Amino acid sequence: MKVAIAQLNYTIGDFEGNSNKIIQQINSAKSDDADLVIFSELSITGYYPHDLLEKKEFILKAESAISEIAKSCVGIAAVVGAPRINESERGKQLFNSAFFLTDGKIKSIQNKTLLPTYDIFDEYRHFEPNRDFSVVEYRGEKIAITICEDLWDELPTANEFGKDKLYRVSPMEELSKFNPDFVVNISASPFSYNQEGWRKNVLINKAKNYNIPIFYVNQIGAQTELIFDGGSVFIDKNGEIIKELKYFEEDNLLVDTLNIGDKQLQNKVETTGKIHDALVLGIRDYFRKMGFKKATLGLSGGIDSAVTVVLAVRALGAENVRVLLMPSKYSSDHSIEDARVLAENLKIKYEIVNIQSAVDKFETELAPLFEGTSPDVTEENIQARTRGIYVMAISNKFGHILLNTTNKSECAVGYGTLYGDMNGGIAVLGDVYKMEVFRLSRFINKDGEVIPENSIVKPPSAELRPDQKDTDSLPEYKDLDEILFNYIELNKSPKEIAALGFDEAEVRRVIRMVNMNEYKRFQMAPVLRISSKAFGFGRKMPLVAKY
Amino acid sequence: MKVAIAQLNYTIGDFEGNSNKIIQQINSAKSDDADLVIFSELSITGYYPHDLLEKKEFILKAESAISEIAKSCVGIAAVVGAPRINESERGKQLFNSAFFLTDGKIKSIQNKTLLPTYDIFDEYRHFEPNRDFSVVEYRGEKIAITICEDLWDELPTANEFGKDKLYRVSPMEELSKFNPDFVVNISASPFSYNQEGWRKNVLINKAKNYNIPIFYVNQIGAQTELIFDGGSVFIDKNGEIIKELKYFEEDNLLVDTLNIGDKQLQNKVETTGKIHDALVLGIRDYFRKMGFKKATLGLSGGIDSAVTVVLAVRALGAENVRVLLMPSKYSSDHSIEDARVLAENLKIKYEIVNIQSAVDKFETELAPLFEGTSPDVTEENIQARTRGIYVMAISNKFGHILLNTTNKSECAVGYGTLYGDMNGGIAVLGDVYKMEVFRLSRFINKDGEVIPENSIVKPPSAELRPDQKDTDSLPEYKDLDEILFNYIELNKSPKEIAALGFDEAEVRRVIRMVNMNEYKRFQMAPVLRISSKAFGFGRKMPLVAKY
Repeated sequence: MKVAIAQLNYTIGDFEGNSNKIIQQINSAKSDDADLVIFSELSITGYYPHDLLEKKEFILKAESAISEIAKSCVGIAAVVGAPRINESERGKQLFNSAFFLTDGKIKSIQNKTLLPTYDIFDEYRHFEPNRDFSVVEYRGEKIAITICEDLWDELPTANEFGKDKLYRVSPMEELSKFNPDFVVNISASPFSYNQEGWRKNVLINKAKNYNIPIFYVNQIGAQTELIFDGGSVFIDKNGEIIKELKYFEEDNLLVDTLNIGDKQLQNKVETTGKIHDALVLGIRDYFRKMGFKKATLGLSGGIDSAVTVVLAVRALGAENVRVLLMPSKYSSDHSIEDARVLAENLKIKYEIVNIQSAVDKFETELAPLFEGTSPDVTEENIQARTRGIYVMAISNKFGHILLNTTNKSECAVGYGTLYGDMNGGIAVLGDVYKMEVFRLSRFINKDGEVIPENSIVKPPSAELRPDQKDTDSLPEYKDLDEILFNYIELNKSPKEIAALGFDEAEVRRVIRMVNMNEYKRFQMAPVLRISSKAFGFGRKMPLVAKY
Repeated sequence: MKVAIAQLNYTIGDFEGNSNKIIQQINSAKSDDADLVIFSELSITGYYPHDLLEKKEFILKAESAISEIAKSCVGIAAVVGAPRINESERGKQLFNSAFFLTDGKIKSIQNKTLLPTYDIFDEYRHFEPNRDFSVVEYRGEKIAITICEDLWDELPTANEFGKDKLYRVSPMEELSKFNPDFVVNISASPFSYNQEGWRKNVLINKAKNYNIPIFYVNQIGAQTELIFDGGSVFIDKNGEIIKELKYFEEDNLLVDTLNIGDKQLQNKVETTGKIHDALVLGIRDYFRKMGFKKATLGLSGGIDSAVTVVLAVRALGAENVRVLLMPSKYSSDHSIEDARVLAENLKIKYEIVNIQSAVDKFETELAPLFEGTSPDVTEENIQARTRGIYVMAISNKFGHILLNTTNKSECAVGYGTLYGDMNGGIAVLGDVYKMEVFRLSRFINKDGEVIPENSIVKPPSAELRPDQKDTDSLPEYKDLDEILFNYIELNKSPKEIAALGFDEAEVRRVIRMVNMNEYKRFQMAPVLRISSKAFGFGRKMPLVAKY
């Protein structure tokens, strides 16, 4: 059987656009004599539509899109993903389904059994789990259709509870009773740099254990925070990856199950390179899918804004990026110079606005109210917020979307000013720890200096008071990042983290900062997710709590 | 059997504080000769701890709290709620459990069966559903213990799918097989003004249908957005409410099942009065549980800030509220005067800062960058953001938490400036439609003018340009609110809403504004929830989407 894998980039709720893409692929697969073409999970709606699924109109639109697509499936079959109404009088309103289309109509439907409801996943909010299993018979083959998590019947994230099965049912165990010839897995599996190998291993083990080939079809493209990386694979019954599709790009491939041919794998890319590609795609899709073209941000001469602006230029083009340099009396000459060199290296439009006169005006006006008080974080915040006003003014006046440059380390400990440097439509580095930001800067400079060396090597500083350094109030980033990773990604307790070789009081101080700053993150822009635990809706902490 | 209902206010994660409260109630019930005292759902941890439940340390602390409380249960029994580890090798890591404590130890445990995972509820994220049913035998009675949703096996929210059973299991049906003498329902049921009657009806119907008395024990107190209203009841087997505890206050009551006595119900309160009490509690608990005392906000002379400041004074005391009046050249004389009179009526500290000179400074500095452009929303936003800087400066300098005054109607259509008037630690009116804000102002003035009449009757305006009125860009609030309610609370389609008597193009324009402004709400403060569908984590919409 000739099976086409279609790894596409969908837009949530864009039924027309998504359907057109799908139909085009069906037609092209047909002209390649394919028997079957496979699309990914919820391909009709995009993943994940969240509470749009509660609107009946939305579901009915998905239904008509399916009927429309079915009409193209003559002389070929397709598997597409969409929500559908649960007709039973009991249970959730919907199923998350795989539609098998052929002969111009829906031949069969398989619903998703295992509904991930953890981290960024929220499927039991909307979907009823499947309880009936069967295979599709088509052109003499028996096909077992599964949807993403259905093959993941093991615990997917770090946990301290020593549990290894998150679900009570194993769809593969049920489906294997029908002796299928191969497995189709339609997926929506987002990128996370620290879980990549794990995903492939799950698939390889399933193929091996059940001695069955697997077509794993992922999607690519960013949906606000989530970045889907593609990398769809065909795995033979020995658990070997024979074909592998591109990462962070649309791609498609035809596999003849009777004549598999040579291995076709992607070149290995180092983690930092993948994070780079993920973030570029994250920015590009955020703008493209929102209908925006142009971005702005403040360049401070520091490394975070430097890396962010390079990623923005790579995602949107130099002609669409425009920056502000906003020195104050605390800015070092070097900072302005570094920012200017970077802007010139990138050939982007830059302008300089000195914030000092506005800051002075605020301080003058506030003087009578502040009588008898000493300067503190208030005055630092006024600077950051004044910059926020200037850069938002550019954003409003010229329609440039503001990119937030906060990194994950400072975001974690609340080292940033709400309504100031925490402003922005999307937080590009909000899931990237500071040490990884350094690695990204080296990666960016690998073929020649783009980011001035000085921005990389100078001690990080917010430059909000004389001679300020980040390390005045924070541990060295090398240590800070390790403490944070163990607390945030791995959910370790203070004692366990201290046992890795840190001072327990210091660990507790850092964790206290993380906990106390939930309120800032609550009001932050969506964060492009590259790890297994990003800030945002995948990490939901109570704001008002004692812990 | 003498049963005490303990309706308390818990703090999330405050194991010591919550346990002490519980133990005190057990001791006091014992001195009243009670046989049993009932606390509410997750009383040990507070509801809802969210992803703190993923930290093993947190669960172990709950375990030791339970052991400690059990020691007080000698000569008396108690039902308390807490998470516990699921010891099975399969399934989620935890159960949401009711512990029956007596003789100094845990006598039995009942796990929650129906795990609400919709709107603000997220329980399947952390908990495995119960599948085993039994009753507790204690002092000759058989007690069926249920946890909140367990009695709610019907669809709880408006839906367009015509479904009436959200779950496949009915715990009451299972438990009734054991012929229990009465039902205990430990609950964490938040206030929503448009679902109140529905909650009582569910309980009444269960009592009637199974011919069994029910002890329904709710909690009170606000947990960030969620406001639990109490109103615990004892319902006899005929489905009559015999005892009813207070709303929005801690309360307790002893019921002798053999000698029920007279009816004891709370006075009826009109909806607006309840919303008033809910919001006051919401503010008070936000501050108290965060360890804050003092609040600030900008008074504009308009009705939203007027109502907010009155609620703040009632929650925190006049001595803890301090406001800024921040006129610009577009502010009417009346606005300043109205704000001043209000502050004087409330006897709160107020100061005046004219924003014009700072705004002018921004405009001067931006003039070269803005050459050739015309004034637009940019200049309006600069005013709102300048106010944001001033009021945040007061907040930072003196430790006053900024209250956000945005109402639900403007929040819905994005009529507000991000990083400007959308600033604040908690959004007091973010779930209150404008028409309800008017009713609140009348309610506040019912015993004499607190809010100047002029603030109530003048046409609403943002005063960001000459002669601006809200109705320049929005429909009349009466119509706007009805369209919004049908779209947001009831999930109706544009066509269905138009059929209620609105122009379809106008309905679509309003809905488009709602959809386009998800990005603003994403960065907004938590919203005190009083309805069945508040903005925030109970309404999760994709930011990047076409719909």
